Amino acid sequence: MFELSQPLERETIRINSVNRSVEILDQRALPHCVAVLSLQNEEQACEAIRSMAVRGAPLIGITGAAAMALACSKDSSNKALNEAAERVKSARPTAVNLAWAVDKVLQALLSLPASQREAAAWDSAESILEQERRMSLKIGKYALGIIEALYRKLGRPVRLLTHCNAGALATVGPGTATAGFYAAHQKGIPIEVYADETRPRLQGAMTAWELCSCGVPVSLIADNAGGHLMREGLIDAVFVGADRIAANGDTANKIGTYLKALSAADNNIPFYVAAPVSTFDASLKDGSGIPIEERSGDEIRRVYGADENGLPASVFITSRSQKVMNPGFDVTPSRLITAFVTDQGVFAANELEEIWKDGKDAEQ
Amino acid sequence: MFELSQPLERETIRINSVNRSVEILDQRALPHCVAVLSLQNEEQACEAIRSMAVRGAPLIGITGAAAMALACSKDSSNKALNEAAERVKSARPTAVNLAWAVDKVLQALLSLPASQREAAAWDSAESILEQERRMSLKIGKYALGIIEALYRKLGRPVRLLTHCNAGALATVGPGTATAGFYAAHQKGIPIEVYADETRPRLQGAMTAWELCSCGVPVSLIADNAGGHLMREGLIDAVFVGADRIAANGDTANKIGTYLKALSAADNNIPFYVAAPVSTFDASLKDGSGIPIEERSGDEIRRVYGADENGLPASVFITSRSQKVMNPGFDVTPSRLITAFVTDQGVFAANELEEIWKDGKDAEQ
Repeated sequence: MFELSQPLERETIRINSVNRSVEILDQRALPHCVAVLSLQNEEQACEAIRSMAVRGAPLIGITGAAAMALACSKDSSNKALNEAAERVKSARPTAVNLAWAVDKVLQALLSLPASQREAAAWDSAESILEQERRMSLKIGKYALGIIEALYRKLGRPVRLLTHCNAGALATVGPGTATAGFYAAHQKGIPIEVYADETRPRLQGAMTAWELCSCGVPVSLIADNAGGHLMREGLIDAVFVGADRIAANGDTANKIGTYLKALSAADNNIPFYVAAPVSTFDASLKDGSGIPIEERSGDEIRRVYGADENGLPASVFITSRSQKVMNPGFDVTPSRLITAFVTDQGVFAANELEEIWKDGKDAEQ
Repeated sequence: MFELSQPLERETIRINSVNRSVEILDQRALPHCVAVLSLQNEEQACEAIRSMAVRGAPLIGITGAAAMALACSKDSSNKALNEAAERVKSARPTAVNLAWAVDKVLQALLSLPASQREAAAWDSAESILEQERRMSLKIGKYALGIIEALYRKLGRPVRLLTHCNAGALATVGPGTATAGFYAAHQKGIPIEVYADETRPRLQGAMTAWELCSCGVPVSLIADNAGGHLMREGLIDAVFVGADRIAANGDTANKIGTYLKALSAADNNIPFYVAAPVSTFDASLKDGSGIPIEERSGDEIRRVYGADENGLPASVFITSRSQKVMNPGFDVTPSRLITAFVTDQGVFAANELEEIWKDGKDAEQ
């Protein structure tokens, strides 16, 4: 079992290069049940990715690297490694981080004699994990600066709203949107978090769970409630993650983010997007080029949770033939975003060219 | 069974003064099961109000009047009628329409000799029902003018977004927010409705159900999705109901309404509040005086619906001890409201004094 009481030691994945072992927190049962899966081979690692036992771009990438290490422990031949890489990458073909991490491990291994490959594969997976953890901690450091300044100004607990789960569960380390929350809590700066439940997939319940289990005060709210809380003066700042950010700062994130950005602007509340610089896509001039995924209508029609006994259960909230529409993301125009909190610092929308100038993905 | 195929003949309550009978559509099982309850006596009518088998201010008022008629059929003495009125009013003490309707019937009966009371009680209940139906139809007539103008301008189906259920199910006749939808559909003006699911209570599923069952094209969407649809040009106008409207036009309505109003304004989409003039509260200068009800946290933690077999079921989406916040309503500032569609005509926020001048509640 993971140690839930210590925020930055909570782990979504553990790679042990000495024991050649991989363990993951099985997120399918959260927040109702905390279960750890031990991944014995590449097939199990692929299944964990496919079934969303792990989720979040950074975490999927790390699990892919771990899958390559498991494959290499079984057969380190060129043929076997190349085939394994194809299988792992196809577990979730649209996840850019997955292909990036798998190819990075593969290229490193192919350049080595077979006898050195197994050790190198495990080292490489561990190093990718550590790199992602550093990214998350850096975002936390910059976000902490913002939250600490608010605390000094207000002289009372800082009230923070977030949407979806851009938390520890989506990455390793303290997450992206939540990184500053954990950093502030660790430093003794009092905060109160409001987590949008984030229909249809209710990832907000996971955000509430992970913050709660680390002792950060958090209230779960309906997605409808954020505007009212802002009008009532109950929110001091909003932090959200991002799926893709265009060159001008237009930001694609979980559906509903745009509504909260509008409300923040209407109430003069700062609205921050927290994401690694790898989330920026310089090839897109603005948000109009970001494709928005239309997801399964059953996500609207059916709600998953736990029954009276804590066992997985679901209910239909409408007829199975009810017509629905279910866009997965929306685009928040950069004019509504106060600043971008990245692993390379805090940037306003009109300062984003500094990211390109300083060399995006320096560490990668 | 009610006739579901004909929009304006769908009835949430039937009062038959000849047979001395009352039937209601039991809304507790909607949209999963359509059941009709026959109310045999005042106690059963009170229980229907208390248990929310009927809901919506106008409908609760009518049911209260019907309860008085049922009570009068049993015992038409002054003492019995006065006691019955107290019991019925206390079934939902905060519902203004309930007290108004019950007192109206009571006063009419007390002025008559006992021998004439029973017939008068049933006539009075029927007349309140017809008055509410006329109100709803008048709102529909004015909303139709708006939708028809949009159709002429656009030359394609008009796409309309609504929030919560301010529909036929909350009243008698075609509802308030939905009144124009039914009127347009009946006139052959093509419309497509997007219904916010409206967490936590998911009244949007009822809106989708009632429109669907009358042949009006409707898609159910997550509350998070409306902003994205507006940005994508998929919404031509928004119609919502209202719980209370201050003198300056600030409007309290179901939580989340404000976010949709912000998004409509950001995308130059007209935003209409459809409500009878009885919803205006001239005693409140603006929306800051409207009390906002904090509702049970279990509405957030638990989602009700139907299981695989269509039977009532629920799931917990979070732990039972998860801290939550659950405001039931929010206030949309009048600056975001294009116009108020009432039973006395269409008014911009700066024209509202005409309502007071012309005599509010003329019919009541």
